[in-house]
Amino acid sequence: MLLVADNIRITNKRIERAVNELNPAPIQEMARRCEAAGADAMDINSGPLSREPVKQMTFLVEAVQAVSDLPILIDTANPRAMKAGLEANKKVAIINGFSLEPAKLEQMLPLAKRFGTRIVGYLLYPNGHVPPDGSERLNVAVALYDAFRKAGLENEQLIIDPVVAPVMWQNGTIQNMDIISVLRTLPDLLGFDVSTIAGLSNLTSGQGDKEKKRLLESVYLPMLAVSGLSMALLNMFHEKTVRIAGVYNALINKKIFSWEEI
Amino acid sequence: MLLVADNIRITNKRIERAVNELNPAPIQEMARRCEAAGADAMDINSGPLSREPVKQMTFLVEAVQAVSDLPILIDTANPRAMKAGLEANKKVAIINGFSLEPAKLEQMLPLAKRFGTRIVGYLLYPNGHVPPDGSERLNVAVALYDAFRKAGLENEQLIIDPVVAPVMWQNGTIQNMDIISVLRTLPDLLGFDVSTIAGLSNLTSGQGDKEKKRLLESVYLPMLAVSGLSMALLNMFHEKTVRIAGVYNALINKKIFSWEEI
Repeated sequence: MLLVADNIRITNKRIERAVNELNPAPIQEMARRCEAAGADAMDINSGPLSREPVKQMTFLVEAVQAVSDLPILIDTANPRAMKAGLEANKKVAIINGFSLEPAKLEQMLPLAKRFGTRIVGYLLYPNGHVPPDGSERLNVAVALYDAFRKAGLENEQLIIDPVVAPVMWQNGTIQNMDIISVLRTLPDLLGFDVSTIAGLSNLTSGQGDKEKKRLLESVYLPMLAVSGLSMALLNMFHEKTVRIAGVYNALINKKIFSWEEI
Repeated sequence: MLLVADNIRITNKRIERAVNELNPAPIQEMARRCEAAGADAMDINSGPLSREPVKQMTFLVEAVQAVSDLPILIDTANPRAMKAGLEANKKVAIINGFSLEPAKLEQMLPLAKRFGTRIVGYLLYPNGHVPPDGSERLNVAVALYDAFRKAGLENEQLIIDPVVAPVMWQNGTIQNMDIISVLRTLPDLLGFDVSTIAGLSNLTSGQGDKEKKRLLESVYLPMLAVSGLSMALLNMFHEKTVRIAGVYNALINKKIFSWEEI
């Protein structure tokens, strides 16, 4: 399982200020720290960048890639910002993402074709709502895959995000167990070993004790991973959770186990 | 997932001395502590009790059941001790266990029929060796189930133990991933929702740093659990591991999640 840092996000005040001031230092410091913490890729969650999407996304991608060779996930709902990010990209970029929402199908999918990148597809209804159960999530996956193929993309380009639910939602625990079965079922359903990603921070969003939140993450992460999750999107500064991911990777390793690895 | 304490075991010097002296106090203290730590059942691992099997097992079962109403797993390879334990039992007892070893088939299985108890079946070859891979483990499961049914037992009486491998074994990590697929496959293979148990302490037996051992347990436990494990046999004094099991149970709960539960 690969780890994708979710730390570079506009909801972090330091990042927001850096973007507004086009000051690369705080962003680069964050990128370096994520890589040092073991990130395999970095999500750049810029928000809509409604004021200056092209200028700001170009700045963000260039800032990160000046200090890191890791793949980036360009995470914005703004198609102009997405296109600018893909044009600025000098290494590996992934579009994050699309869904059955008509605007996403029309504007994001063609960018994956045009730039030859991978793209994250969310299991959400066309109105952006979360499907109520596992079987509806699978119906959405089939429709999503259909749209994806119609856009001329190859299987290897798809990464599905089943959308982790906050445990605090009324049916949060049920939804998150549905996600486990969705992860197990997807390869058979779509007929290939589809890549998947899940945002672990979603699980504990809202109120709650920090230590308990980390504990919940460290239990749900191996559950997702053993059920087939390819990439976990998480806060790389949650040291215990990152350590759990390392232990998981050592446990599934086909080499001889060594205590030094964990 | 239920937790079965593996603490009452003859390899613990205090327990060994208490059995030899027929002194119930240390055993009862252990039983009370396991129950307070959240055990749902207690394994009584007496070893072969070669000197006085009947007297010593009767003593053990009576000592535990004088202070605890929890189900007990009577864990001995000695059929005389097993029979004595089952006769002394006043609550719920489970035979731990049998395998394809001829002596076990001849002497343990009939006891499950005679006393109407559940029985743990180990996925081991007739010579007691561990099968080399997942598909061989499944072959053994079919043979084991066949022998079990021929003994006139009902499906609900069977509990399968896939035999967790020490990670330090040359192919330990591979075997433990095989066990994950065995757990997922067993219900389809046998055609009913078969109960399962796994000894978590096996995973980290041998040399190794204690903190790392606990970490490994806390990652492998949710992996086993989400793959269908019904009962984990573990040291109830490994507080972090027990807490992980509680968090897992809260995460799969179909009630509304509450931070107070974990």
